[in-house]
Amino acid sequence: MKINIVGRGNVATHLSLALENKAEVIRVNPRSLEEYSLDADITLIAVSDNAIREVAESLPVSRAIIAHTSGSTPIGILDCRQEKTGVFYPLQTFTKGISLDYSEIPLFIEASDKETETKLKNLAHLFSNNVATADSSKRKVLHVASVFACNFTNHLWCIADELLKEQGMSFATIRPLLKETLRKTGNISPFDSQTGPAVRRDSKTLDSHLSFLKEKHADLAEIYDKLSASIISTHKKDN
Amino acid sequence: MKINIVGRGNVATHLSLALENKAEVIRVNPRSLEEYSLDADITLIAVSDNAIREVAESLPVSRAIIAHTSGSTPIGILDCRQEKTGVFYPLQTFTKGISLDYSEIPLFIEASDKETETKLKNLAHLFSNNVATADSSKRKVLHVASVFACNFTNHLWCIADELLKEQGMSFATIRPLLKETLRKTGNISPFDSQTGPAVRRDSKTLDSHLSFLKEKHADLAEIYDKLSASIISTHKKDN
Repeated sequence: MKINIVGRGNVATHLSLALENKAEVIRVNPRSLEEYSLDADITLIAVSDNAIREVAESLPVSRAIIAHTSGSTPIGILDCRQEKTGVFYPLQTFTKGISLDYSEIPLFIEASDKETETKLKNLAHLFSNNVATADSSKRKVLHVASVFACNFTNHLWCIADELLKEQGMSFATIRPLLKETLRKTGNISPFDSQTGPAVRRDSKTLDSHLSFLKEKHADLAEIYDKLSASIISTHKKDN
Repeated sequence: MKINIVGRGNVATHLSLALENKAEVIRVNPRSLEEYSLDADITLIAVSDNAIREVAESLPVSRAIIAHTSGSTPIGILDCRQEKTGVFYPLQTFTKGISLDYSEIPLFIEASDKETETKLKNLAHLFSNNVATADSSKRKVLHVASVFACNFTNHLWCIADELLKEQGMSFATIRPLLKETLRKTGNISPFDSQTGPAVRRDSKTLDSHLSFLKEKHADLAEIYDKLSASIISTHKKDN
């Protein structure tokens, strides 16, 4: 299989690494398109969401399926093309210079027709054991859920890091706690593994934390309050 | 060393497991105190925060150091005792029936005097490679930071789980993403590993996620909005 990967960011780089030795990969600069192969089977557009349409419009006509790799962009953005189209969405956070076990990455496929779907799935199966279809609305929920589960949690770690630093402590201190918190969810649901003062309705601790935060970090107090209220209301439902 | 562990919850159970074969552990029912050993070296009060004072007051007088295991309770709550006092705070989330690598658990010690501090540290070193001192104000920050980093993140996973379930998808789908998100913070700070639409200031995606949430989940839209704003403001500071 011969694949154009159009893009210069982390997704493009990691998809190239995932596919090397498994397909013939051609890295294509989205600005010049100089390297673009006209006899590739599939072209993956791995650029920022805002640039997908412009890049799609600028690609030369060829026999290649054209697919983008975005979680939050409908397949319809590729309607400007006459070729078969699809979405090839790897649900993972990609960081420059950090290697990954590509076999674990969930790949979500959408396609303009059944044959294209099969071809995109075959491409995904070259490196991932975890391939499924997802239409645009399912993919949107996946993306929203990932923002809650990954981007927002990372930000909460960033907040914890700041609070600890102020006291001369390091984020490493709480890594065993994070590791265990994540490990637990492999055995029990996040609902059942909820701990902490909010789920215990320990109002004394909640008040003490809130007044500490209000003194120096009014914005964090608001987040603390809102998330605690959400925990209490979520766990009220089943009581 | 002979240790009374007063309590019947997860912390008491896990501390007993951590210390078995390393000290002589006596499990004590906090209601009856029947098993309480008068010649123990240390008594750990591992009960809910609200019950610490009552249990402390009810313990028979002995030569044992009396320490509680709470992150959010000042050492002063033990002032009702004439014995040496302390705090023996394991920073970990303990779940019934789930075994742990106790050597990794950070232990934070506070004590009424230097000699007591040494004895509590020695007890901690029996199972943990990660022992430090922390006074009540430092411990409070540790606890607040842990609520952000652990209890709140778990709740965000719970939210993601609910969103995925509505679409017939499983939380397992995003576990590789969570694993990688956590693993990254071993190499780079949570600040530097922030990804997602908010840090990219991708207002199109933010708006699309918000309007999706507002339709069916107004409470989640509020959380989404507040956390996104916090990410944007955190990452504005350095630009």
